[in-house]
Amino acid sequence: MTCTLKEGDLVVIEFDERRRFVTRLRKGARTGSDVGVVLHDDVIGSPCGSYVPVRGGRGGYALVYKPSIIDVLEHGFRRATQVIYPKDSALIAVLAGVGPGARIVEVGTGSGFVTALLAWLVGENGHVYTYEVRREALETAKRNLAMLGLEKRVTFHHRDARLGILEENVDAVIVDMPDPWDILDEAYRALKPGGVFAAYTPSAHQLYMLMERLLEHGGFTRPRVMEVLLREWLPEPEALRPASTMIAHTGFITVSRKVTKKEQV
Amino acid sequence: MTCTLKEGDLVVIEFDERRRFVTRLRKGARTGSDVGVVLHDDVIGSPCGSYVPVRGGRGGYALVYKPSIIDVLEHGFRRATQVIYPKDSALIAVLAGVGPGARIVEVGTGSGFVTALLAWLVGENGHVYTYEVRREALETAKRNLAMLGLEKRVTFHHRDARLGILEENVDAVIVDMPDPWDILDEAYRALKPGGVFAAYTPSAHQLYMLMERLLEHGGFTRPRVMEVLLREWLPEPEALRPASTMIAHTGFITVSRKVTKKEQV
Amino acid sequence: MTCTLKEGDLVVIEFDERRRFVTRLRKGARTGSDVGVVLHDDVIGSPCGSYVPVRGGRGGYALVYKPSIIDVLEHGFRRATQVIYPKDSALIAVLAGVGPGARIVEVGTGSGFVTALLAWLVGENGHVYTYEVRREALETAKRNLAMLGLEKRVTFHHRDARLGILEENVDAVIVDMPDPWDILDEAYRALKPGGVFAAYTPSAHQLYMLMERLLEHGGFTRPRVMEVLLREWLPEPEALRPASTMIAHTGFITVSRKVTKKEQV
Amino acid sequence: MTCTLKEGDLVVIEFDERRRFVTRLRKGARTGSDVGVVLHDDVIGSPCGSYVPVRGGRGGYALVYKPSIIDVLEHGFRRATQVIYPKDSALIAVLAGVGPGARIVEVGTGSGFVTALLAWLVGENGHVYTYEVRREALETAKRNLAMLGLEKRVTFHHRDARLGILEENVDAVIVDMPDPWDILDEAYRALKPGGVFAAYTPSAHQLYMLMERLLEHGGFTRPRVMEVLLREWLPEPEALRPASTMIAHTGFITVSRKVTKKEQV
Repeated sequence: MTCTLKEGDLVVIEFDERRRFVTRLRKGARTGSDVGVVLHDDVIGSPCGSYVPVRGGRGGYALVYKPSIIDVLEHGFRRATQVIYPKDSALIAVLAGVGPGARIVEVGTGSGFVTALLAWLVGENGHVYTYEVRREALETAKRNLAMLGLEKRVTFHHRDARLGILEENVDAVIVDMPDPWDILDEAYRALKPGGVFAAYTPSAHQLYMLMERLLEHGGFTRPRVMEVLLREWLPEPEALRPASTMIAHTGFITVSRKVTKKEQV
Repeated sequence: MTCTLKEGDLVVIEFDERRRFVTRLRKGARTGSDVGVVLHDDVIGSPCGSYVPVRGGRGGYALVYKPSIIDVLEHGFRRATQVIYPKDSALIAVLAGVGPGARIVEVGTGSGFVTALLAWLVGENGHVYTYEVRREALETAKRNLAMLGLEKRVTFHHRDARLGILEENVDAVIVDMPDPWDILDEAYRALKPGGVFAAYTPSAHQLYMLMERLLEHGGFTRPRVMEVLLREWLPEPEALRPASTMIAHTGFITVSRKVTKKEQV
Repeated sequence: MTCTLKEGDLVVIEFDERRRFVTRLRKGARTGSDVGVVLHDDVIGSPCGSYVPVRGGRGGYALVYKPSIIDVLEHGFRRATQVIYPKDSALIAVLAGVGPGARIVEVGTGSGFVTALLAWLVGENGHVYTYEVRREALETAKRNLAMLGLEKRVTFHHRDARLGILEENVDAVIVDMPDPWDILDEAYRALKPGGVFAAYTPSAHQLYMLMERLLEHGGFTRPRVMEVLLREWLPEPEALRPASTMIAHTGFITVSRKVTKKEQV
Repeated sequence: MTCTLKEGDLVVIEFDERRRFVTRLRKGARTGSDVGVVLHDDVIGSPCGSYVPVRGGRGGYALVYKPSIIDVLEHGFRRATQVIYPKDSALIAVLAGVGPGARIVEVGTGSGFVTALLAWLVGENGHVYTYEVRREALETAKRNLAMLGLEKRVTFHHRDARLGILEENVDAVIVDMPDPWDILDEAYRALKPGGVFAAYTPSAHQLYMLMERLLEHGGFTRPRVMEVLLREWLPEPEALRPASTMIAHTGFITVSRKVTKKEQV
């Protein structure tokens, strides 16, 4: 009934805060770092959150646990492109209504960081259709999704979505591309009425362009635009204070909703 | 195939940015505000995102659409207590690994805002067990969850969780109570190995106390502590800039993980 | 030797956090609010920071003290226009090198909030030349400066600075106008070599325009652009945390320096 | 009449954004970096903001200009200790009413960064009295102040201020020490009535302790507590957005004012 680690499980092996590795357990295998090695045979059979011995190197113990989706994104995924951080993708997902059973189009797969979160959230009855023009990024994304066993919930299109989104009546279209204003017509067509359009744009000038076109379009509600700042704190009682540095900016999040155009009423 | 609004659907009726109402459509019913009235009969049969006429008052059109979970939290839920905002609860949920199929304990139901997000995310195969000592808050939470049809995914305990969490081997324990350090032993017991403990604390002094006890406990990993600042921007091209005011603070988020205590290795 | 309040002194009379009045002490005068009245005769002769009785109303005591420059800006100045907050103006001033003896041009006097800080900082040997096209704002600014007795350190120009700044070889040009890019040539002419150009712009689009023109100009160094977020905390030990709301945005600060154009080298 | 650089002037020689040197011009001297050398003889006689040739290395030009006080703090001062950033010290200074003619006590000289700003702001008729127990820090501070020619406006005490502040009736006491609550009695004694107490504390726990003692003391007004976040933006039109990283935290600023204790009224 309790949770025990077994061969084939995806785990985090954490030597310390800077040395975390996401790997799949295999009998006889080892995960090494500059401070020592963990034998998978020491891990298999342990509780799902355990200390296991570090062989050689600095000795002592490493922490082993089953990763959350965020652990895998942060420590297990390859990055072939700029990625969207969980602080942003988690908010985009809930604002876009991405939950069990949802059908989502993503434009701009990149390395698959958002794809993975979406695929995980839509569950077995939902689906993610993702578009990417860079073949290499798409291959990285596929490998990343496979690590989580989520690839079957995703359809990968190696295609420029501006030339046509192939799906219809989807619940949300989530866009991470340099010129998100160029996808508005296709997004409108693909969305079900009331469906959510969400875009992620790094620069203020992109945001300016997107606002201009989105308001002109007429088929979207007045957007909600926001940025998320995440500040980490040091977990030490007497020295309790924020960490010295932080990510100052990632991107602006825009969320709007498809409606029947006013002229058509 | 396309989405059409029908009797019994939960909808947002939005007269303008400050007048949004979450209601369930009923033949013959009406939703009114100081600027006019929307007849549900005008809504039933429309696409899921539409403009419908405002009768009387200022005239013109109101926007009608099916709400996301966040729309319901923000505009449909009753508040009997301080609530946790989506910017925080969305991040807590993904950091705690709350997805389809998860089994989650929540301590401090409050008005059910986090409960609802969790119940929505765990899907039909997951479950949320929530504890609350204030009967009135619990009743509000139940009504709120029923609005979303999610009450069957939730077990409501009118009970002080410090006296004993009744579940075992859960994936996460999520805590919103004034003295989260008092629940550490019970949380540890209820969690599966590797399961996630997450707490939300408004004041720095609470955070100080929690850090002290969490580090002392020995059965939790070094926590990750963070705060989230959400800044809304005005969606107007020429005047593109953040809104004048923002929420400066809600609470600190602490996330840690149960591990086999070091002494036991 | 110690400080005692006397007739003619400018003081803050603070009934509570929301009722602060900046006034000049006069024998026989009174300062009233909805919670009672303070007699100036009770104040004259007291130490420069004192509690004095509130007559009538809620009774008790009011706090009286000599204001800092910031107290006067925040509680004594009239506002005929949007104003720049001390968090911004203090930083602009030090980045622009505004200290004792400096000669500064300000474009966009507004209500004189920045003018006053500059005039105060340059001391008796410095001077501020300020330009404003709106006569009413200029009159408000003059009255505000007179309240501080700083009007003799300021030359008020009722004039469009774009048609010509009348001074030369000034240490800094500080600009708060909707189209700061239109003043670049005049600012360049008025500044001494190495002098500082500083602008304050509320919107991202203004900032975009300014960046474009400033980089094109060729006579200014690569600018430093920043925004300042000030978060107030509640001064209560057990409830130590930031206030619930804050100012989310005021304006962007741009600072650059005049150099001999590269073509001229 | 225009500004020309001459022997003995303090200048910034800026090869690029990461290579800025504050130095005093001397005939025959040179300032070098890994990308080349600037001959002071090329600089002497140039306008106060100029491009001068880089000899050897990458060639091209370096920028030379007279520094602002902030330029000297950022690029010219030695750091023997943690320092307080201009975003904080500028605000502390104006909130504490530090301007021409003020008499200020500083507790915790450190490397003299705040001392220098204060000395600069008080002008020739003001004075700064600073206390430091670490001799080495005090020597660094003296050298730093001498670089600016401001050492004559400062009295350096190698002394624990908790054992007694030697001045009386000062306008402000500004404190940067680990236990600022231990100086409250001495600060109260040294301040003129209505004078300002300002403290800078990195950790939330220090802030907690300070709030507790400050409120207990009875001789200070309800403090104002704040933190300042400074976000730099990239000065590029098309890519206009905040820099990727920022300083997440420096310290909390507390400002209060001495008043006659209520019991004494």
